[in-house]
Amino acid sequence: MERFNASISVDQRLCLQDIRGSQAHAAMLARQGVIPAADAEAIIKGLEQVLSEIQAGEMAWTDSLEDIHTHVEARLKELIGEPAGRLHTGRSRNDQVATDLRLWVMQAGRELDTALRDYQRSLVGLAQDHAETIMPGYTHLQRAQPVLLAHHLLAYVEMAWRDRARLADCLGRAAVLPLGAAALAGTSFDLDPASVAQDLGFQGVFANSLDAVSDRDFALEFLFVLSLIQVHLSRLAEELVLWSSQEFGFITLSDAFATGSSIMPQKKNPDAAELVRGKSGRVVGGLVGLLVVLKALPLAYNKDLQEDKEPVFDAFDTVLDSLLVMAPMLASLHVDQARMGRAVEEGFLNATELADFLAARGVPFRQAHEVAGQAVRLAEERACALQDLSDEDYAALCQGLEVEPGPELKQALEPRRAVDRRTSPGGTARPNVKKALKEARKRLWPEG
Amino acid sequence: MERFNASISVDQRLCLQDIRGSQAHAAMLARQGVIPAADAEAIIKGLEQVLSEIQAGEMAWTDSLEDIHTHVEARLKELIGEPAGRLHTGRSRNDQVATDLRLWVMQAGRELDTALRDYQRSLVGLAQDHAETIMPGYTHLQRAQPVLLAHHLLAYVEMAWRDRARLADCLGRAAVLPLGAAALAGTSFDLDPASVAQDLGFQGVFANSLDAVSDRDFALEFLFVLSLIQVHLSRLAEELVLWSSQEFGFITLSDAFATGSSIMPQKKNPDAAELVRGKSGRVVGGLVGLLVVLKALPLAYNKDLQEDKEPVFDAFDTVLDSLLVMAPMLASLHVDQARMGRAVEEGFLNATELADFLAARGVPFRQAHEVAGQAVRLAEERACALQDLSDEDYAALCQGLEVEPGPELKQALEPRRAVDRRTSPGGTARPNVKKALKEARKRLWPEG
Amino acid sequence: MERFNASISVDQRLCLQDIRGSQAHAAMLARQGVIPAADAEAIIKGLEQVLSEIQAGEMAWTDSLEDIHTHVEARLKELIGEPAGRLHTGRSRNDQVATDLRLWVMQAGRELDTALRDYQRSLVGLAQDHAETIMPGYTHLQRAQPVLLAHHLLAYVEMAWRDRARLADCLGRAAVLPLGAAALAGTSFDLDPASVAQDLGFQGVFANSLDAVSDRDFALEFLFVLSLIQVHLSRLAEELVLWSSQEFGFITLSDAFATGSSIMPQKKNPDAAELVRGKSGRVVGGLVGLLVVLKALPLAYNKDLQEDKEPVFDAFDTVLDSLLVMAPMLASLHVDQARMGRAVEEGFLNATELADFLAARGVPFRQAHEVAGQAVRLAEERACALQDLSDEDYAALCQGLEVEPGPELKQALEPRRAVDRRTSPGGTARPNVKKALKEARKRLWPEG
Amino acid sequence: MERFNASISVDQRLCLQDIRGSQAHAAMLARQGVIPAADAEAIIKGLEQVLSEIQAGEMAWTDSLEDIHTHVEARLKELIGEPAGRLHTGRSRNDQVATDLRLWVMQAGRELDTALRDYQRSLVGLAQDHAETIMPGYTHLQRAQPVLLAHHLLAYVEMAWRDRARLADCLGRAAVLPLGAAALAGTSFDLDPASVAQDLGFQGVFANSLDAVSDRDFALEFLFVLSLIQVHLSRLAEELVLWSSQEFGFITLSDAFATGSSIMPQKKNPDAAELVRGKSGRVVGGLVGLLVVLKALPLAYNKDLQEDKEPVFDAFDTVLDSLLVMAPMLASLHVDQARMGRAVEEGFLNATELADFLAARGVPFRQAHEVAGQAVRLAEERACALQDLSDEDYAALCQGLEVEPGPELKQALEPRRAVDRRTSPGGTARPNVKKALKEARKRLWPEG
Repeated sequence: MERFNASISVDQRLCLQDIRGSQAHAAMLARQGVIPAADAEAIIKGLEQVLSEIQAGEMAWTDSLEDIHTHVEARLKELIGEPAGRLHTGRSRNDQVATDLRLWVMQAGRELDTALRDYQRSLVGLAQDHAETIMPGYTHLQRAQPVLLAHHLLAYVEMAWRDRARLADCLGRAAVLPLGAAALAGTSFDLDPASVAQDLGFQGVFANSLDAVSDRDFALEFLFVLSLIQVHLSRLAEELVLWSSQEFGFITLSDAFATGSSIMPQKKNPDAAELVRGKSGRVVGGLVGLLVVLKALPLAYNKDLQEDKEPVFDAFDTVLDSLLVMAPMLASLHVDQARMGRAVEEGFLNATELADFLAARGVPFRQAHEVAGQAVRLAEERACALQDLSDEDYAALCQGLEVEPGPELKQALEPRRAVDRRTSPGGTARPNVKKALKEARKRLWPEG
Repeated sequence: MERFNASISVDQRLCLQDIRGSQAHAAMLARQGVIPAADAEAIIKGLEQVLSEIQAGEMAWTDSLEDIHTHVEARLKELIGEPAGRLHTGRSRNDQVATDLRLWVMQAGRELDTALRDYQRSLVGLAQDHAETIMPGYTHLQRAQPVLLAHHLLAYVEMAWRDRARLADCLGRAAVLPLGAAALAGTSFDLDPASVAQDLGFQGVFANSLDAVSDRDFALEFLFVLSLIQVHLSRLAEELVLWSSQEFGFITLSDAFATGSSIMPQKKNPDAAELVRGKSGRVVGGLVGLLVVLKALPLAYNKDLQEDKEPVFDAFDTVLDSLLVMAPMLASLHVDQARMGRAVEEGFLNATELADFLAARGVPFRQAHEVAGQAVRLAEERACALQDLSDEDYAALCQGLEVEPGPELKQALEPRRAVDRRTSPGGTARPNVKKALKEARKRLWPEG
Repeated sequence: MERFNASISVDQRLCLQDIRGSQAHAAMLARQGVIPAADAEAIIKGLEQVLSEIQAGEMAWTDSLEDIHTHVEARLKELIGEPAGRLHTGRSRNDQVATDLRLWVMQAGRELDTALRDYQRSLVGLAQDHAETIMPGYTHLQRAQPVLLAHHLLAYVEMAWRDRARLADCLGRAAVLPLGAAALAGTSFDLDPASVAQDLGFQGVFANSLDAVSDRDFALEFLFVLSLIQVHLSRLAEELVLWSSQEFGFITLSDAFATGSSIMPQKKNPDAAELVRGKSGRVVGGLVGLLVVLKALPLAYNKDLQEDKEPVFDAFDTVLDSLLVMAPMLASLHVDQARMGRAVEEGFLNATELADFLAARGVPFRQAHEVAGQAVRLAEERACALQDLSDEDYAALCQGLEVEPGPELKQALEPRRAVDRRTSPGGTARPNVKKALKEARKRLWPEG
Repeated sequence: MERFNASISVDQRLCLQDIRGSQAHAAMLARQGVIPAADAEAIIKGLEQVLSEIQAGEMAWTDSLEDIHTHVEARLKELIGEPAGRLHTGRSRNDQVATDLRLWVMQAGRELDTALRDYQRSLVGLAQDHAETIMPGYTHLQRAQPVLLAHHLLAYVEMAWRDRARLADCLGRAAVLPLGAAALAGTSFDLDPASVAQDLGFQGVFANSLDAVSDRDFALEFLFVLSLIQVHLSRLAEELVLWSSQEFGFITLSDAFATGSSIMPQKKNPDAAELVRGKSGRVVGGLVGLLVVLKALPLAYNKDLQEDKEPVFDAFDTVLDSLLVMAPMLASLHVDQARMGRAVEEGFLNATELADFLAARGVPFRQAHEVAGQAVRLAEERACALQDLSDEDYAALCQGLEVEPGPELKQALEPRRAVDRRTSPGGTARPNVKKALKEARKRLWPEG
């Protein structure tokens, strides 16, 4: 039962936050005249000592001291004696643990944002190397229209901008101090939570003590933000797995991110990408788990809330590690531009161009579409590309239409031309993508 | 297969958005000179006609016209003939459906925000009626310390403020126009998406065409916002169920929100609250479902994305209905103040006060806590409240301490005093709560 | 509120089960002498009449008669008058609705089992056509070793056997009658639930009345069985999407299960497979939703349980439709054997064979593996297959080893030989697979 | 990357299974003449040595040896040299890890079944002590009808029987040996998996090698079984939390399973029950996580599958610990029979009896129900129980009916009579419950 009840194996990870929170609390208590300044000083110094000991691996963790708060306080008492007892004035473990976890999320969020930025930088770096590389754009995993590889990669940069915006919103809401709500109702001591908030980097202070100790919205929102990041990564990972298959053959992963097989000497398995993809499960699972915990929980604090920390820690570790793996994996992969180019040539991706060409010359769109379809079928029969059909073929196809397919037709069918025709805002034309790259660089390397 | 493939039974709900989006697109095409102004005019008028027909229930929905876009366009063609074909210039169904759903979410979000506000108003209204009503505050569902009922209700108002802030953030990110991304790569037509965005109330325009057609972050974020609202409601619903039990007996629900039993004449079941609580399942299920859909989906559009609409519609309906039920249920419930008062008297909720009283008079806190524990055990034996122990009892309990328990002790044990001592910011003291109520009124009824 | 509370829009689907259950209940009441035989007869006939009316679409559904039970009983009263009131003797809506849903699941389960069998038959039919077709077997989506397409397809047949076994177990547990538990405590009437169970096809009778009205394990287990089926289908659907891409080019879907693009004339999108894949989301979402509903629900009946039906109905419809689409899609797809054959030749899938060949001739496995790896690199450089390296190449590679690579080496590298060497039980050797096909036929077409 | 890729921190828990599997494999290889008997002997002994070292904590785990298989084999090689290399003949890590995890689940399943049985024994033990204790039966958390506490507890015993049946079904399907499937296609060595299966306690052997290495159904099914157990526990935990509140006051938890508050001396928090309730989140989260992993994963082995072990381990630990806590918590709790009795008296739970009494005397049920309702309202006004209304009251209520309410009426209203009238099979009448207890004892203590 002691083991079942104890959370120390999990929440020892909050030691830094617990101690910083306690130091700020003690300083405030002294400023407010609630405890003597000398006591506060002793507490703050003592806590610094406890922190060094923990960081030096000298703390003896035990389930009999249920949680991190008890460990810290017990050791503090050993170090400084009686004044240690004054630290808990005007607070309880209910508001203390909420403070710790919020502080932790705020710090983790900053790390996450940096990792997201570095991942974006990797994507943009690779995109810059491939600002002219043409690949098939897919819908339904069918080759659809040629696009720039850079354009494709920048789609993931966009997702990451949204992830970072969601993260910032989440962190803003997390940065509300609950300390001073005490057990549930507030306290009679003359506290000044606003100054504690400022000391610790919070942006605001709780408005309602019952809410302060029972609210885990910030943990849920953080888990959602993490889930969405990992789902985005799973999409890119899926593409890396596809692209490194023999069938696609678009990329070769660096050996550091792929492993061989003990049985099959020819293999180069994209393990890292597969793991990133698979790990979306555990992050989503963590989100679901905490939603289940919160469902139908009456106010205010309930012990069920102890289950908040593990999914948050695990999901954060997973997403951070995935980003840290993805960034160098992207930076080090090799793109087979020739293979991509052939794929663009072979899939009739220029059928749209053919239809557009005819439409632009006055053929009603439905009819133009139909002729393009006939051309595709003819080229399939001949096992050639659309641009390899003869002028006679095109003449026959256009019979009855008021169009004279000349050399401009063949030009229009060139993939690079197709790419460059997509000039609408956000389209894949080279100037658009170059502009997008330039803007991305400006945002991601603001100092140049 | 036709039925399996068709989405019309679901996406007909997007008819208004589909038509408004098409009208704005046509107007822009004319402004840009892509199609003749006369055609645009015919299209816009024709679409208005289609809309009236749909709203009048005159559209014959059929799975053979797969989706809402096809229905609208087919009918438009019947009405205005050839110019209808020009409407699809420079767009595809991939960007069109994303536009429709975003518009729908933007509108639904506004309705939701209003419903949240009205729910908050109901909570504040009830809180105002009970600005002096004292109830037990609970932790671990054990009576802990007395709080004001108003304070308890305002905790839910706080949750709703966060819900509304999350919703606003989500809607800001949803309000990015994808129209003009076409199938996946942009288009060669000279579009002006920014002006369409302005016409339709979007705040921005997509930056990357591949992202624009494959992004469903806004739907996932909306589902998360909805899940968290419903989880909050499930917590309040749980409390309403508890409070209306015979054991608590704190409230009586109005007959409109409770039902009798065909077998048991004495029963009054809190059906509405139970349904609100239970419906958290379907909203969370919808969020999980869409996360599963998105997992490992390569770019750009895939048919899997068709599964985005139903969970969004269902979760929105569920949450909106729940709010619309909760608001009047709160407004019409009857609070048994006397029963609440007795509950406060009986649970030794003032044991903290006793300990604090002693501590304030110099007894070390651990010792004060111990004496309070002894007093509780004594009162349990005597089957009386702490305030009903005799002066002799207290004298005996305090033996050896340098405290003289006089009449102020008994005063300190009064629940109202206990409440009013919780004066720290965010605490339950009456002046605090009155201030909080005043601020809530100002925010919720800004015009006074 | 009436609309919020009513379930009739959902549970009208239980009309057949509700009426059959009521008829069996009435017959039993008469057999036990609880109600007159004439009344039971009138009830049974009257209910048959109500059923015909419902099936003829003549029932006027209204939220004011909350649920299916009320509708049926109200109409029965109109038809037969006073004896209708006796039908509810010894039961309540709590045990009645549980009976209805169990009956529905039992019937749905039978349909599902048939659909699973037909899906297996489609797989086996396709496998039989390809008992000699060799394709690359994949791990990590990398070509690993050649396997028979039949072997690959039979892996999905195995999954479906497990699905059917799980379904049978689930249906056995669902087939326990709750009728007679009444509201929660049983009844004083002299009921004989065992005979009702027999009439309705249940295999057993509830043992505890509180459990009988609050248990939804059968619904959860059914949802889990459905989730796992759909996850299996999502794996096959993913492969169909991959295989019908231009990169793989292994299969062509029949036009009935693929759609063209209004913009891109060359496209043939595997819509049906994508939908099957995507719909795994809603089934898993339904399972999660009901788990959330049940979490922390005290005994016995709570209104939350009303949320049990929609996920069950929706998940069943989804899975059944998916199976019904998958079976003919598999039956009608075209396999490009030549393309598969080329893929087998090109990916160095016989590197294992080379290593095995050397190992069988006494070269230590690690060394053999290394030589095979060198051969792969050499062949990559030469852009040829392993079997196309010259005898001199092999002589050089084997230098220092006591092996004389002769013509048997080249033979060992033939894919068909590689397949046929996998003779261990359950391996892909042709005789194994033929035996597996034969057994599958015997189980799936027992009458021959 | 090494850390990201490595699974050793998780899968070292499979060391016993890995070694037992390898020993059985080596023995079979020797029996089949694939490797020399002396080598097999050396391997088997050497593995026993590795196992002792691991169990003695002497193994140095390192991420550079990715997983448990590599650690064991590397150490084996150090111990016995060259023959160690023969162990991997005819298998790969793909079938090996599946074997290990299945063996682990089989063992864990047995422990779980024992823990479920002990939990049932605790429930039955408590039920036996309360075979005569009457409590309110609830629907909608409203007092409905009196039931025996034993009857209530036996409802949870029923759930556990179903859990054990589901577990047995799951374990049967888990007990299928995948070893010998090798990487994905089988092997050319003459293996005899059936004999390995027998050695290791498996009930069958895989039929298809591709399925064998890619199937994780057993893990998902185990997670579902665990989820349902924990959801059941969450329902009981919720009731324990409710019952130990001051409002219910039905039970007092033993001090070992409740904790005090550092601030509030009067508190006794049901921590253990809250944790059991909250931990339903992580188990459901684990199930969801693995479903997400499996979604849309093509055959055969993918690295994503490495994510299967942690949720299985964590969910098993959680459920086992919860059962181990629940059993003694139930055994040691104190029931306040008097308080339960008063609750039964006060809630008009005998209103049904009054209606039944009248109905049995010929009053049409609707009318009887109405009179009972009037009686409830009258008693509410008088603040008394139904049995405390005077004979004059009842005479007035029954005016116009052909019923003479005599002393039998008052008798019929006694709770014990109400309980004993529920004589239908599975009802709460004392003889029924005694029979149920007797049967439970026979099943749970078969040796008497």
